[in-house]
Amino acid sequence: MEVVQVLHMNKGEGETSYAKNSKVQSKIISITKTVTEEAIIELLCKNLPESMGIADLGCSSGPNTLTVISEIIDIIYSKCSNLGCPTPELRICLNDLYSNDFNDVFGSLPAFYNKLKEEKGTDFGQCFITGVPGSFYGRLFPRKSMHFVHSSSSLHWLSQVPSGLDSKASTGINKGRIYISKTSPQSVLDSYMLQFQKDFSLFLKSRSNEIVPGGCMVLSFTGRKSMDPTSIESCHQWELLAQALMNMVSEGLVPEEKVDTFNAPYYGPCAEELELEVQKEGSFIMDRLEAFEIDWDGGVDMPNTINGTLSSGQRVAKAIRAVIESMLESHFGRDIMDDLFQRHADLVDKHLAKTRTKYTNLVIHLVRKG
Amino acid sequence: MEVVQVLHMNKGEGETSYAKNSKVQSKIISITKTVTEEAIIELLCKNLPESMGIADLGCSSGPNTLTVISEIIDIIYSKCSNLGCPTPELRICLNDLYSNDFNDVFGSLPAFYNKLKEEKGTDFGQCFITGVPGSFYGRLFPRKSMHFVHSSSSLHWLSQVPSGLDSKASTGINKGRIYISKTSPQSVLDSYMLQFQKDFSLFLKSRSNEIVPGGCMVLSFTGRKSMDPTSIESCHQWELLAQALMNMVSEGLVPEEKVDTFNAPYYGPCAEELELEVQKEGSFIMDRLEAFEIDWDGGVDMPNTINGTLSSGQRVAKAIRAVIESMLESHFGRDIMDDLFQRHADLVDKHLAKTRTKYTNLVIHLVRKG
Repeated sequence: MEVVQVLHMNKGEGETSYAKNSKVQSKIISITKTVTEEAIIELLCKNLPESMGIADLGCSSGPNTLTVISEIIDIIYSKCSNLGCPTPELRICLNDLYSNDFNDVFGSLPAFYNKLKEEKGTDFGQCFITGVPGSFYGRLFPRKSMHFVHSSSSLHWLSQVPSGLDSKASTGINKGRIYISKTSPQSVLDSYMLQFQKDFSLFLKSRSNEIVPGGCMVLSFTGRKSMDPTSIESCHQWELLAQALMNMVSEGLVPEEKVDTFNAPYYGPCAEELELEVQKEGSFIMDRLEAFEIDWDGGVDMPNTINGTLSSGQRVAKAIRAVIESMLESHFGRDIMDDLFQRHADLVDKHLAKTRTKYTNLVIHLVRKG
Repeated sequence: MEVVQVLHMNKGEGETSYAKNSKVQSKIISITKTVTEEAIIELLCKNLPESMGIADLGCSSGPNTLTVISEIIDIIYSKCSNLGCPTPELRICLNDLYSNDFNDVFGSLPAFYNKLKEEKGTDFGQCFITGVPGSFYGRLFPRKSMHFVHSSSSLHWLSQVPSGLDSKASTGINKGRIYISKTSPQSVLDSYMLQFQKDFSLFLKSRSNEIVPGGCMVLSFTGRKSMDPTSIESCHQWELLAQALMNMVSEGLVPEEKVDTFNAPYYGPCAEELELEVQKEGSFIMDRLEAFEIDWDGGVDMPNTINGTLSSGQRVAKAIRAVIESMLESHFGRDIMDDLFQRHADLVDKHLAKTRTKYTNLVIHLVRKG
């Protein structure tokens, strides 16, 4: 089952769209901005290229897509101004899966280019923004063409549902679960860990072909502080969604078999797992690894034009829905989505009333060896 | 007025879509294939690059988009096999305006890549297909990054309505016309010619920065054999459309002022004009220029699922509608489109009953000087 092929953020500008519900991801981008900034400055100080390859992997669509690019350009522009050097020619590649709404991204480029010209003037070098569709678990760019690769809130998605789980439904090994949990048998945990290792090492290998010596990556994604993959910080969101689904099973609204055959292609790794894969692959040095916590609702107000203030649970459910609805819809059908995410919101509210569980986000800075 | 910003082929797969009505363009691609083939073979024999930049300018969406790319890949693959050399890494850039349906193009890439792998095997080098949105009347690609640039059925579109025509409505200089004609005053002809010269020289200048020495372009577009820009081969299509509009004006369905303020951002040049601009710009040698005629309906049957066989006029009107409807719609409104193109089809039928006028297509092969 290639679930990831149907993973795309909710399109358009509506109530459930990713464009309107991507504050958590926006907060993460702003928190990791310092790491991005320091990485780029270090890169430019070592060697200012004439032409600089930049990529954002899992760029998505909506306001965050060009925010990232805009920040990166600002950093380069300001550093080059300080150094008294001309800005390099910038080759900017926006990557996401084939199903991403690239039309939306491209539609906002004329205004983006105009703003760039206004703010930076004609002294600013050429800037070429292109769309590169495809999975980052594989080659995306020509050999030695990239200087800086960025990815935010994307690498916790696996390339596919872990292999070895195919018979889950028939054996009932992870019954009523859609991700790993405290009660998952070791075989399920192993399948997920192995899939992560396979994917992340392929990611590193692909990038090692594409990034010039001395070039670097800043990657941030959901992970965990604990070595234990079943810790509450990494599983509880999925647990609540599974509960919401199982409530619907008990009311006869969803066949239990449907829940048993759904597995989220997701894995939130810990620092040790990342370090191991980086070491094994061998092309990169991990220069920096930081963990930070972020509220499930991004700790920001999300205005609701219909009902006034939303509860935390509703905000969290909306943010998650904008990301994973396409995936759930293709398995469970469109009809149950409103009901499902209402139940999910209620469960999140109940949970947050007891414990302020947060997401753990990891950000790593990897430098390509010379 | 930036008409060209709203010029995009009709989206989707419906009756009036470009995907279903692009046989004329497909025919042109197949006629010019030999020129493309010889140009690429000449290029590869001079110098086989390790990494080869290829662009299709005005790629559009629908079946033609990947046909062009597929043919180019086949030519390279077969030549390299003959030479016993590995295929270069291919960097393929699909360019069109920001409003082009890139989502549609990207959606067909997974199947395209799979077919490539099946047909060519794993010996075939890496092939990276990217979307590059923007106007080709300006820079699109990094310096010296391109080896082969292709464009079909696109360069007859100007970057904008010729400047100097702004006051057309108030002065009535080209009254009831939407393009130049026998009765156009010299000032209108001059405006169109100047806009073409400005655009084509900017096109050449932009590409001269992007194409490596020895690299080349194969460009085909609608033009004319006659030196006279008001000759029937280049104007009559627009003339018939203007007649259809003026019929609607006489019936009170379209305000006359609307027709007077519409100018097609189009110009079909002759060989002499092309040669002059190529010479003036100075970076390219024109290695080949050929003209060929093509029936208004592409000389192919276009099956109609609704009414059985269509008349020639209806086929021609559908083919033209798929290309220019977006542009006309933004000026005249959506409501009149069906009526307009029915009238247009009738006028085309009447015309073709008298004279078998054809399009003149030009194809040129330009080589970047060393």
